Parts: sequence; C-alpha cells; structure tokens
Amino acid sequence: MYALSATPAVVTTVDLDGNVNASAMGAVVRIAHDPVAVTFTIGLGRDTAYNVSATGEFVVNIPSFSPKDLRSMCLTGADLPAGKNELDYAGLTAMDSRVVKPPRIAEYDRHFECRVLWNMQWRDRLTIVGEVVAASCSSDVMDEHGKLIWEVARPATYCGGPYGLTFTSSFERTTVKLGSEVDDLMSSLRPTPPGYAGVMGNHASGEKR
Amino acid sequence: MYALSATPAVVTTVDLDGNVNASAMGAVVRIAHDPVAVTFTIGLGRDTAYNVSATGEFVVNIPSFSPKDLRSMCLTGADLPAGKNELDYAGLTAMDSRVVKPPRIAEYDRHFECRVLWNMQWRDRLTIVGEVVAASCSSDVMDEHGKLIWEVARPATYCGGPYGLTFTSSFERTTVKLGSEVDDLMSSLRPTPPGYAGVMGNHASGEKR
Repeated sequence: MYALSATPAVVTTVDLDGNVNASAMGAVVRIAHDPVAVTFTIGLGRDTAYNVSATGEFVVNIPSFSPKDLRSMCLTGADLPAGKNELDYAGLTAMDSRVVKPPRIAEYDRHFECRVLWNMQWRDRLTIVGEVVAASCSSDVMDEHGKLIWEVARPATYCGGPYGLTFTSSFERTTVKLGSEVDDLMSSLRPTPPGYAGVMGNHASGEKR
Repeated sequence: MYALSATPAVVTTVDLDGNVNASAMGAVVRIAHDPVAVTFTIGLGRDTAYNVSATGEFVVNIPSFSPKDLRSMCLTGADLPAGKNELDYAGLTAMDSRVVKPPRIAEYDRHFECRVLWNMQWRDRLTIVGEVVAASCSSDVMDEHGKLIWEVARPATYCGGPYGLTFTSSFERTTVKLGSEVDDLMSSLRPTPPGYAGVMGNHASGEKR
C-alpha cells in the first residue's frame, strides 16, 4: 500500500525466567508526549507478545539508517528455535537497562525503557502501549539541550511489507513557518510545551559507550 | 525526545449533522497488513475524537514533503471556533470519498478511508484503530504494480513536539539483502505475502485529479 510508515526498532523483552528475546518491529511510534508513551502492534503467539504480557516490560532500541544497523535489526526478525537468542544471531550485544529487566542493545544509539500501560488483543494481533520510564542515547547523537542531532542519529523509516526489507532515511528536515498569529491556534502539532524538556531529564543524560 | 517518528496526516471526519472537521495528526501508522489497519492517538475533547466516536469513520489524507502540503497540513491543526471549517482555513478542497462520509482532501496525493475497529480511552487521550475500507491515490504516485513511486510521492515524517513544526523527507531508500537462507526465517519484517497486492485492488486503482 501507499506507505504509512514509522520508525523501525528492535524490541527486547525477557520471559519469566529472564531469557532474553529480541524482535524487529516495523513501526514503533510515540503517541503521547507527557509522559512519553509509545505503541507497537505484534502478532499473537510471538515471543514478544508473551513476554510483554507476562512481565509488563520492554525496551525499544532504535537503529540508525546504516547498512550495519538495518541488517542486524532485520536479523532479529528471524524465527529462531525456542531458546536461541536473536541478539547473538544478529551479532548484537545486550547491555543492562537502567530501570527495567529487558536489556538495551549496545550497538544502537537510542533506547526507550518502557512499562506497559495497557494492551489490546484484536484479530490475531496485540497492540501494546507503554510508558517510557527511562531513555538513554549515545552522547554524540544529542545536543546540549537534549535534542537529537538528526544528521548524526540518522533516523530510519520502514517502508512496510509490500516493499520488503526497504527503509528510507529520515533526516533531511524542513520547518514550517506559519507566523505568530497562526502559531497561537495550533494544538495538534504544537511546539514544545514549557517544561517538556525536563520530563525525561533524569534518564536522558548522554551516555557514552 | 529522541524521535520515534511517523507519517503526518490530516484526518477528516464529520459530525452527526455532516459538518466536516479536519485535524493535523503527527503520527498515523499502519499496524496490520491484511486487511490493512491504521492507528492514531488524539486528545480527548478534540472534535476528531467526538466525531470518530459518534460516526465510526475517518479519512487519513497524506501530504507530501513539500512546503505547500506541510504548511496546509499544519494550518488544519488550528483551534478554530466551532463551525469554522479547517479545510477552508488551510486552503484545502474537500472531495467526496468512495465509501465513507468524511471527505478526502483533493490537494493531497494519498487517501485512506477507514472504519473504526476499536478505540481505547486512556489518560486524556483516545487511541483509535481503523480498518482501511478504501484507498486511493493520484495515478502519478503509483506504478503499474500498485506500489508507491517514492520519489514522486515524497513521503514526509513528523519530528515530534520538541522540534516544533519540523518534518523530514522519507524517500531516500535502502534495501537490506540477507541471503535466501536467512530470508526464510524472517517474520516480523517479512516481504509481501502472496496475494497481498490484491487486497486493496478494488479501491487502489489510480485516480487522476
């Protein structure tokens, strides 16, 4: 179809015994700003669905638009036999998270540790919404105001099933100028609310690997 | 925060009297392929939330990464007095949809007509999931196989609240090659399933404005 795309990611989870699972997701999206909440949807029967339902925790790990990151992310989408660790298979390294049990992926620059707010089962799918309880990134992808340096982070977008394992870059930017009399009327695409930058302040400090 | 971005869109709805509302959304995302389902999340109290809950229908209209489209989309985010039509305010033209009551936006290249599958109220927000019951696009953005011509369609990505009205382009593509022995293991980022292209066939035929 005509591409309703979003950020691809590897979601890491653990089962009740602590075994790590990792799975490529085509679309993980922020759906609330304060506190930040994210959503993704996965097929029932997948290990990620079981683990998130059992533990209520997951970590969203964001690859950059680089052949290496995109390839390793795709490899975590493999249907491996039970007990096989997708991170090993993809050549990725688990790194302890700050708050939740599932690990972060050391090779990726951006991580969102999440606790489940709610999930909804429909058709053969599970839609999961989680609140971000900790976020971290490599210090080189964030400026001194806690904002992304897009050209360094090089965000990717997944094109969707009909296009195979195809991704676009998402860092050539443009900013719309509406004029101050119009800005006052904006709500759905409103600029940063006052104090927003501090919401994740405890967790967002740069971290050098 | 560190950008979990997605496709921006204008969602059109009608109230029970048929009055049209339009609202800019920062992230509308496909969360199922067959049949195609999409989701977005909006603040409670917004006209879109009322109208979707009342009528069960909405249309997702996708702007391209062009100053004109992005500007008009942002203008539909204005908090206008009740009864004021955001499409008029933004200089956009309503075009009848094929299946649902809310109109499509003539100036935009891609449209998804949707019926609500379910919605979920949480915090002060409403997460809406709809099934795509009709899709249409300008004939110039689709090739003869029904796939997007990315360089013509020029998809955009919204950077998120902390970055103001800033968008990235999303059409510089790369495709990951894993090798056939690995492709067989893929599930979460699987290429097009057989027959997929036909799912929307009745509605996806090119439409020239």
